[in-house]
Order: sequence, then C-alpha cells, then structure tokens
Amino acid sequence: MVPPAAGQSPAGGSGAVEVVRLRVDGGEPAREPRPDSVAVEEPLEVRVAGAAVVVTMRTPGHDDDLALGFLLTEGLLPGPSAVARTTACVDEGVDGEPLVGSLELALADGVPVPDLEGRRTFGMTSACGVCGSASVDAVRARTGANLWRDDVVVDAAVLAGLPDRLREAQRVFARTGGLHAAGLAGADGELLVVREDVGRHNAVDKVLGWAAREVGWPLTGHVLVVSGRASFELAQKAWMAGVPVLAAVSAPSSLAVQLAREAGMTLAGFVRPPTLNLYAGAHRVRVHGLAGDE
Amino acid sequence: MVPPAAGQSPAGGSGAVEVVRLRVDGGEPAREPRPDSVAVEEPLEVRVAGAAVVVTMRTPGHDDDLALGFLLTEGLLPGPSAVARTTACVDEGVDGEPLVGSLELALADGVPVPDLEGRRTFGMTSACGVCGSASVDAVRARTGANLWRDDVVVDAAVLAGLPDRLREAQRVFARTGGLHAAGLAGADGELLVVREDVGRHNAVDKVLGWAAREVGWPLTGHVLVVSGRASFELAQKAWMAGVPVLAAVSAPSSLAVQLAREAGMTLAGFVRPPTLNLYAGAHRVRVHGLAGDE
Repeated sequence: MVPPAAGQSPAGGSGAVEVVRLRVDGGEPAREPRPDSVAVEEPLEVRVAGAAVVVTMRTPGHDDDLALGFLLTEGLLPGPSAVARTTACVDEGVDGEPLVGSLELALADGVPVPDLEGRRTFGMTSACGVCGSASVDAVRARTGANLWRDDVVVDAAVLAGLPDRLREAQRVFARTGGLHAAGLAGADGELLVVREDVGRHNAVDKVLGWAAREVGWPLTGHVLVVSGRASFELAQKAWMAGVPVLAAVSAPSSLAVQLAREAGMTLAGFVRPPTLNLYAGAHRVRVHGLAGDE
Repeated sequence: MVPPAAGQSPAGGSGAVEVVRLRVDGGEPAREPRPDSVAVEEPLEVRVAGAAVVVTMRTPGHDDDLALGFLLTEGLLPGPSAVARTTACVDEGVDGEPLVGSLELALADGVPVPDLEGRRTFGMTSACGVCGSASVDAVRARTGANLWRDDVVVDAAVLAGLPDRLREAQRVFARTGGLHAAGLAGADGELLVVREDVGRHNAVDKVLGWAAREVGWPLTGHVLVVSGRASFELAQKAWMAGVPVLAAVSAPSSLAVQLAREAGMTLAGFVRPPTLNLYAGAHRVRVHGLAGDE
C-alpha cells in the first residue's frame, strides 16, 4: 500500500561536498590543511503559475517534494493534485555538477492561483523562525485537518524508538554533522520516508511533499519525527498535513505546546529511549497496554 | 568603553514558561503529569515607517535589539542612527504578563524608507533557511563591510574557549533545553553580550542590534560565536555587521564556507576545546604564537 523507503537516498545525492580546512588542536601547532565534508546548502527558487513564491536555502535533492510540501503546509495549494507539472531550471552547482536553481509549478485546470498578495509584507528574510502569518489566529484559519477525530494509538516504546531509526537512516549526517532529519512513520513505527536538509523545515517539507503524493493527504494516522526541536512552525506543518503525532528529539517551544493542545495533536519531546515527555495528546500513547491520560 | 554584559539577563526575562507534561519511561507505567519548563516562543511584528516588514517567532526580550539587528543585517537600514524612536505595542502573553506584540520604528530625518518592493515575493514563510534574496549575488550586492582590511588576530586557545563562556552565560538553556545562543567577543575572548532565542537567527540579531548601539557599526575586530551550526545566513549576518571572525560550535554549510572565503571572513567550525576547524581566513588565528596559513 505504502511504498517503502528502502533503497532511497535520504538526501537525493551525497548532500555533502569536500572543502579544505585546517584543524587546530590546542596543544599542537597547525597542521596541513586537509579535505573535509560539509553539508551542501544552495538556494532554490519556487515559482507557481509564473509567480515567484519563495527562495529557500536547501540541501539539493528531492526538490519537487520540497516545493510541494512547502506549498501544501503553507496553505498555498489545496492538495497534491493541484500541481499539473513541475519544470526544473538547471544551473551549475558548486562542484560543477548540474544543480536545480528554480522550479516552476504549473497548476491543474480549475485550481485557483494562490493568493500571495495578503502575505507579501511578511517574512522577507533569511531568518529562522520567521513566520508567514500576522498571528497565531491567521495560522489557525489556514488549517483544514481535524486531528481530534484521529483515534490512532501508538505504543510508547514505538515512539521512543523512532529517533534511533531516524538516525540509522541518515546517511549524510555521519560525515558532515550538519544536517537535520525528518521522517514519517506509521503507527507501528515503520519509517516510510526519511529526508535530510541543512534547514529543519526543509527536511519536514520534503517528507510531507513525498507523502502527499505517495501516501495520501491528509496524513491521518501517521507520526512525524524530527531530529531537533519542536517549534511552532514544525507543529503547524504537521497540523496542515493532518499528522496527529509529532515526536521531537529535543525540546518543544511554548507555542508548539499551545498549538498542539488546541489542534488535538499528540506532541512528544525529548524522545530519548527509554524515556519521552508528552506535552499534549497523551491519550494516543499506549503505556504498558494502557493509553496515557492527560 | 564597552559596557560589560554582567548583570544582564540573556533572554531579557526568564525566557521560559511552565507547562504540564507527562513523562513516560519505557519500563515504567505512566506517572502523574508534572510541571516542566519550555522556552517561550511568541510572534513579533516589526514595522518600519508604517509598513509591516516581518513577523518573527521569537523568545520575548530585547525586542528592540532584535528589530534593529534584523533590519541592519538584512540591509534595510544603513546604521543604528537611522532609527529615531521605537514604539512597542503590548498585548497579553501566554502567562498573562504584558508581552510586546509589535514594534513600530520611526526613521530619523532624511533616512530613506527601505525598499521592500523588490523583496516582496520572497520568504513568505515560516521556514528556517528561507532566503530573502533571489541569489547569492543579490546578497553580495547588499554588503558594505570590507573584511579583508580587518587585520585582527585571535589566539586559537581564545577561540576554542568561547563556547564554554557562551554556555556559562546561558541561563535559560539549562532549564528548557530549547534555546539557541549567540555572543559577541573582543579579540581577547571577553564576551560583551550574550543573547538566547528559540530562533538561532534571532539570537544573532539581538546580539548585533545591541552591539550596533553600544559598541559601534561596523563591528570591526570582533568575534561572533554561535551555539549551533554556521549556515549561509549567519555568515551573511556577520558580514553585513562587519564582524571578521565567526565561530560555530557545530558544522558549517558549503555556502557558509564559500561566503566566508569570498568575503575575507575567518570561519571556525566544530569549536570544541581543545580543537577547532578553520574553513576560511586562517591568517587571523594565532597558533603557538604563529598565525596559521591557509
């Protein structure tokens, strides 16, 4: 039913590039400069029906999924079938290899062009944590998924085991130490897809864009796992995708907790076996055969 | 000459808020929900001369520094004296305390209103790693500081010691595990200011905004230290601020290395005593009395 991730390259390529660097050891004199791997970061412009929507700094690979996941979770497209075709404009990358510089998405017949006008004053920045909406209320108005109806239950042990599975699937991180990861799992803890990126939101967009095409939309009954913190914006993306459970290896923010509680989402933080913290939606987590209570 | 950071609260408040969460231990049944601290994340709208420029998701505190640092490093204002006054609009925060919801900056006489028109199609998003410019060339065109002329030299041991000093100054992290930190130091390694935020770019903007007012602009001869990775965008902010040395606890990205080399910036990554890696500008780092060679 759901295509397995086996054989897929998480980053859609090596995701790393060689640079020369000098290693300095406190007690030792400087040695010769040596090659080292760093995570690739390159700009990608996304255009919809001829209009530039965003430039994102991303790790190349799975660019079509990135664009689709971004547009869906920002509420700019109603579903994956809204895209008729995607055309890539290829430049030359830092290593001389062909590199996608921009993507042009054509809309299917009858799909309205997204209204960018009301959003144009916001987020004209490279900053992490910059929001596309004027308020939390505006974000709430954008969501379509009613998570309260999603009665999936996940074993606490399955949830606690997801970060290890995510890490095993990360190929690039071991070399560069510079990539965030995200994955989508079923309630049984089986990872369907894992993606890596220099931007944590990009990794999530790549996962959700792939899943929108291959699994379904909304993503009822699934678990989104992220390698870092649970910010408001990652919780928002999960909500927009209809994912009922968000599991983060690190801390949640106050607004992520607030959003999860209002949306009916299960939010787990500090997921580090054998423990995890539940900040919202504990009714979906089974502990020793008994679902937790909030 | 430079005001010390002693006595300042890095986050301009507690930066944390109590939430109730349930801790699940793999082998144990669910216990009672208990209070826990999470990092505060709330939206801040920045307006310049009546026009909304950005909404950022930030940890409240030092909001005026955040706005100034953001506008300066995005190239939207020429210097700190461009701002005549800042007016805060106060709402009620999650804990019932007064919270700044938006800042309105009035420009000094003769300062041109920043041109937002050419930037409006980009970055209408909450995503980390989203760029405000169409290309690296556009970023390059924005910078004013010539770092090649900055002949400051820093001891490798001083550079290697910065992360520990940063961590000591972080008050909130120990409780929430959810905040990024940034600091500005002199060539002697003395930290002038430390700021924390749920967004890594916000922490840097708060540091640079404070320093623009209190230290000078550009920040010739200084070192910017960050608790995480060195992305293109953090390197870009350092460049816009005229900071010649950027030291990151974690990995740099490919584009951060490329920008540092082109800008004449010293870029240190994996700064973990007693070692560090130099990816660019090794001539500014003294090892055993001898500056390194690239």
